[in-house]
Amino acid sequence: MSNVREARVTRLSMAAPDDVAPIEAAIAAGTIDPAAIGAIFGKTEGNGCVNDFTRAFAVRALRDMLRTHLGATAAEDVALVMSGGTEGALSPHWLVFEAVPSAAAPRADALALGVHLTPALAPEQIGRTAQAKAVAAGVVEAMRRAGIASPDDVHYVQVKCPLITVERATEAAARGAPPRTTDTLKSMGLSRGAASLGVALALGEVAAEAVTDAAIGADFTVFSRRASASSGVELMANEIVVLGRSAQWTGPLTIDSTVMADAVDLSGVLALFQRQGLAVGGRGGAAAAELVALLSKAEASSTGRVRGFRHTMLDDSDIAATRHARGFVAGVLAGVVGHAEIFVSGGAEHQGPDGGGPVAAIVRRG
Amino acid sequence: MSNVREARVTRLSMAAPDDVAPIEAAIAAGTIDPAAIGAIFGKTEGNGCVNDFTRAFAVRALRDMLRTHLGATAAEDVALVMSGGTEGALSPHWLVFEAVPSAAAPRADALALGVHLTPALAPEQIGRTAQAKAVAAGVVEAMRRAGIASPDDVHYVQVKCPLITVERATEAAARGAPPRTTDTLKSMGLSRGAASLGVALALGEVAAEAVTDAAIGADFTVFSRRASASSGVELMANEIVVLGRSAQWTGPLTIDSTVMADAVDLSGVLALFQRQGLAVGGRGGAAAAELVALLSKAEASSTGRVRGFRHTMLDDSDIAATRHARGFVAGVLAGVVGHAEIFVSGGAEHQGPDGGGPVAAIVRRG
Amino acid sequence: MSNVREARVTRLSMAAPDDVAPIEAAIAAGTIDPAAIGAIFGKTEGNGCVNDFTRAFAVRALRDMLRTHLGATAAEDVALVMSGGTEGALSPHWLVFEAVPSAAAPRADALALGVHLTPALAPEQIGRTAQAKAVAAGVVEAMRRAGIASPDDVHYVQVKCPLITVERATEAAARGAPPRTTDTLKSMGLSRGAASLGVALALGEVAAEAVTDAAIGADFTVFSRRASASSGVELMANEIVVLGRSAQWTGPLTIDSTVMADAVDLSGVLALFQRQGLAVGGRGGAAAAELVALLSKAEASSTGRVRGFRHTMLDDSDIAATRHARGFVAGVLAGVVGHAEIFVSGGAEHQGPDGGGPVAAIVRRG
Amino acid sequence: MSNVREARVTRLSMAAPDDVAPIEAAIAAGTIDPAAIGAIFGKTEGNGCVNDFTRAFAVRALRDMLRTHLGATAAEDVALVMSGGTEGALSPHWLVFEAVPSAAAPRADALALGVHLTPALAPEQIGRTAQAKAVAAGVVEAMRRAGIASPDDVHYVQVKCPLITVERATEAAARGAPPRTTDTLKSMGLSRGAASLGVALALGEVAAEAVTDAAIGADFTVFSRRASASSGVELMANEIVVLGRSAQWTGPLTIDSTVMADAVDLSGVLALFQRQGLAVGGRGGAAAAELVALLSKAEASSTGRVRGFRHTMLDDSDIAATRHARGFVAGVLAGVVGHAEIFVSGGAEHQGPDGGGPVAAIVRRG
Repeated sequence: MSNVREARVTRLSMAAPDDVAPIEAAIAAGTIDPAAIGAIFGKTEGNGCVNDFTRAFAVRALRDMLRTHLGATAAEDVALVMSGGTEGALSPHWLVFEAVPSAAAPRADALALGVHLTPALAPEQIGRTAQAKAVAAGVVEAMRRAGIASPDDVHYVQVKCPLITVERATEAAARGAPPRTTDTLKSMGLSRGAASLGVALALGEVAAEAVTDAAIGADFTVFSRRASASSGVELMANEIVVLGRSAQWTGPLTIDSTVMADAVDLSGVLALFQRQGLAVGGRGGAAAAELVALLSKAEASSTGRVRGFRHTMLDDSDIAATRHARGFVAGVLAGVVGHAEIFVSGGAEHQGPDGGGPVAAIVRRG
Repeated sequence: MSNVREARVTRLSMAAPDDVAPIEAAIAAGTIDPAAIGAIFGKTEGNGCVNDFTRAFAVRALRDMLRTHLGATAAEDVALVMSGGTEGALSPHWLVFEAVPSAAAPRADALALGVHLTPALAPEQIGRTAQAKAVAAGVVEAMRRAGIASPDDVHYVQVKCPLITVERATEAAARGAPPRTTDTLKSMGLSRGAASLGVALALGEVAAEAVTDAAIGADFTVFSRRASASSGVELMANEIVVLGRSAQWTGPLTIDSTVMADAVDLSGVLALFQRQGLAVGGRGGAAAAELVALLSKAEASSTGRVRGFRHTMLDDSDIAATRHARGFVAGVLAGVVGHAEIFVSGGAEHQGPDGGGPVAAIVRRG
Repeated sequence: MSNVREARVTRLSMAAPDDVAPIEAAIAAGTIDPAAIGAIFGKTEGNGCVNDFTRAFAVRALRDMLRTHLGATAAEDVALVMSGGTEGALSPHWLVFEAVPSAAAPRADALALGVHLTPALAPEQIGRTAQAKAVAAGVVEAMRRAGIASPDDVHYVQVKCPLITVERATEAAARGAPPRTTDTLKSMGLSRGAASLGVALALGEVAAEAVTDAAIGADFTVFSRRASASSGVELMANEIVVLGRSAQWTGPLTIDSTVMADAVDLSGVLALFQRQGLAVGGRGGAAAAELVALLSKAEASSTGRVRGFRHTMLDDSDIAATRHARGFVAGVLAGVVGHAEIFVSGGAEHQGPDGGGPVAAIVRRG
Repeated sequence: MSNVREARVTRLSMAAPDDVAPIEAAIAAGTIDPAAIGAIFGKTEGNGCVNDFTRAFAVRALRDMLRTHLGATAAEDVALVMSGGTEGALSPHWLVFEAVPSAAAPRADALALGVHLTPALAPEQIGRTAQAKAVAAGVVEAMRRAGIASPDDVHYVQVKCPLITVERATEAAARGAPPRTTDTLKSMGLSRGAASLGVALALGEVAAEAVTDAAIGADFTVFSRRASASSGVELMANEIVVLGRSAQWTGPLTIDSTVMADAVDLSGVLALFQRQGLAVGGRGGAAAAELVALLSKAEASSTGRVRGFRHTMLDDSDIAATRHARGFVAGVLAGVVGHAEIFVSGGAEHQGPDGGGPVAAIVRRG
């Protein structure tokens, strides 16, 4: 019996953070099989910062929906990754990832996906090398599940990682194991950073000795070109979704990736579009490949400059720098894509170079 | 004796809204002649909305500087156009426009500029066809001063137009001439709209009968492809800066323009770049033409959609839609330009199609 | 058999918009009887404006909780009124209103509550006198249910009212019945205004002939001193909660009310505190009465002035005027109350005088 | 010959940050003598945070005005203290402080003022005990100039203090004297904290050994009850304005002060109002004393709670916590004052207890 699977990715516009109706409709129409869903990403219309409740609202609506189809236990196995913030013309949407058993022959470079949840961390491990190592092991396991043979075939690794709350910090300190920080907001960045360097370790992007406690959250010359991390209060483990290519999968989808060197760098993206036969501006002919989803990270460069010109994102006390960066980078990418229903996230510590970030494209081959 | 002039445009980064030091330095270095300055545009780092004082602060610093070089009277003749809002990576900068007498031979398609101040309007004329007609006449006069023969040679018309304050409305009503609105904010949009349709009239872009009181601020299918308008409390006249091409001017600079059909539309911009020999991403070879300045307008589409996908700009009560639109469109353009020291303004009533806007490029020919 | 009821009001801090755990705990502890719940008010930590999803998130969590206790049908009968925005030190909290059958003797001035849902409106009725009349009838019915004999005994009327969406406007127009506006945001204010004038009609605060289509949303000298209205997309009816005093009820709670004439007016509130034996600053002795809940409305005066001094709330393009007003008025009241776990809502069209608003206090008598 | 002086304080509404017309009018009317001006405070309508240019805009307008009356040199001697942020109903205004020679007899408790500029600090002294000591010495000198005999007679000390820019940090590090921080924003808080503890030292509020580098910016149980500090990029010295009472001064004005223990604490303010014969709500009879100016500081408590109830100011990524706190505390005070043309500033490190702040009232005695 064949173990071949086909990865399916369905992009669906959402009318509100709890609008799961398009997913329900796709299930009813048979174009999404709920039992095959491995992960759902959501780009929701909050501020993407501390007090963004659109993420939790979306997760609640998704879990409720999944429970009606899968039962309470199996519904928990689906990785749900919400990213808040649709600045500029960014359009709220879902990305539903399925792994469907297939009788077809494997196809070269087919999109593959693997999901894994690491064991829970102790609070004092968050934002330190212990977390990076745990994530690195988890990426290896997720790659195994995805049947991705080589780190070179991995194009995007999404990690949802924990953060340090006051309660967690207190508990750890009481055990004589002080956490890296007692500042919740700071712990989010440190956790994202450690998780991303864990991805970099697993993919062989950085040497093990470069990933030290001192480097995490400080030395941004050390980074992954394929990691995307977000931290959430709801878990103490690291939830990992690996997207890559595998000879064990089939179907029309593939994935490719690049890195923006800074907020205006289109060179890699344009090369990717050419390589994959994608039309710039989205107005390709009938034969062209089709962009199913674009995933990227955005951040304001810490130098206060882009290509030598001053930006004001870090000095604007009215709009968070992450919101500025998301809207602007969304524009840079949307001009090439031809629309703005793309997945741009903020908070890119050790995810691409300072001020830049990873970009991955899921492509339906022509 | 020759009447040939050379238009010079100097783009200078500013460190703060009142940072005229770079202009002073250029004057000291002899690269700017204060007596030749016809206009100064400033992209300042405020919110670009009602309570943006960076514009007035910049104007105060500029006038003070100009007075030391030109004396009080001549300093008033320089058109000062400030546009607030440097969302995303947009970089605050000055554009200093000079008209320098030249002994050189005229050069085809050379950049030409003309400045004109219309007579003051009565409050009840603002936002109505009377204003459109006054602006139309003013554009014709500014074209004459610029030596631009045909409307087709005009590529950008900047208008600073008045608004209706409570005092002005009261005064007009007392005379039995009620103004179009007593809402100051609304009057700004109506004034920009009437001014832009005035430009459209002068350039033959719309039929005279299409410019009615009812259409101004309401029927956005009627628009100019080359107007850029901003309203300010400090004047009752319309201050007009026309940029175009003229056979009576000389020098390496030229100007070209296009229109974005919507917020992600790069087709016209890419065509302009190709036509002018500009390198996409800013990394051209030695022989390539050089982009001196990019001027454009941005706005959130009133339909709530871009290419069929919902945007959330009009529903975001935390960030003004104009700020969203400016940052996003800046990204779309900056990816092509290769940096974000570009002049993107908001508030685009009747300036390009709904959700889109005019784009002009000042180019140093290779 | 006695028909005496006791109104109970439980104020519970919430840790997040979906944090119903404190209500669950009170139910488990027997201090709240889910079957007795008539209404739940929630002050949630969103922006209180268009894109505030904390309200819907809270409602979802509340309905889910109520369903587990009451079943699906009865859960729908509980009036849920969410008000977003906890600016300044305002503290997110729930107010759970119960009507509990009691064997005790009635007590003078006891708090009474009545809930009623009017029939659904047609879109073209929203924001017009038809809505005001429907609400007026509904208030009368809610008073009857509450056993409140005289309009003078009513101290607070909360109305959740509908709004006009694009779809509703289109449907109505197709029937030849154009709605009052096709602008959703504007329809919210008009609906709140019509509903509030409906309350004023029912309570005899205004003459019937003063409530005209022209006055709704325009003539703010006509207003209710006891109405509080909010509009939501989820209903076409008007959901009414009347709070007042009744001789048919019992228990230690009573209610009193006053009006702030402007944003700094404490005179009525201080008089209420004295009348009810409440300690200013919350630091009363053992015998003093206790403030259980404070409910009020806040808005920026449309004149741009408070007591003759200019305010900048309407000109601030970075913070919505409703957020400014809520935080400021919360401060005015919290100084007297002694804490900021109080229910201050924005959007006060025809609810108190321009720039002011109604204030109601639920008091546990000493 | 008498050395008796009279302190005059004129509060004037401003229509915009550069609106010095009311001061000019008062000079023209003879009610302000420009030669007697010692300090001008301005509450301007910016965001009060990093990118608030209303402060610099106001200073530019004030200096230009002063120069026309006093000449360039003397104009520099006037202390100009701008505080941005008029959240809620806070009203933009000027406070002009004069010291006028008087032939009258001294009057007990008369308002006295003294201004002093300390020597410039080195960058590495900012935010450290060296700064605190320099400010302490400066306060003593300003008291001497004010003729204030005892620290107990000091009621308000305003300090404008320097900050560390990247350039200053680099210069210091090159000399082998690393500054306390290289983060500009952080240096502002540390500088305000050190300056405030310098005030505390001078006034005997804290023991010398309590003011350590480690305590500055960290141990907020150590604080001044009368300091108000703001940091600005334009100076390396500390500019000090001491307000107090002196037997060497005359006139109807006096000053009193108290401390808010937290954001809702009115107890001290109400006691001050009673002590001084001021009417709560501003509606006193003819004989009552009159409040000329109210000065206070506001901040969000670092505990995330006020009187045990959670606040959301520190978690709101859309509005800076300082803006929330200013608007709310302004409300608390304005309810008592009876209007909101009061001077509430943010950023209260070591200025009053955590979450609270100093309050000073300048009173015209009845």
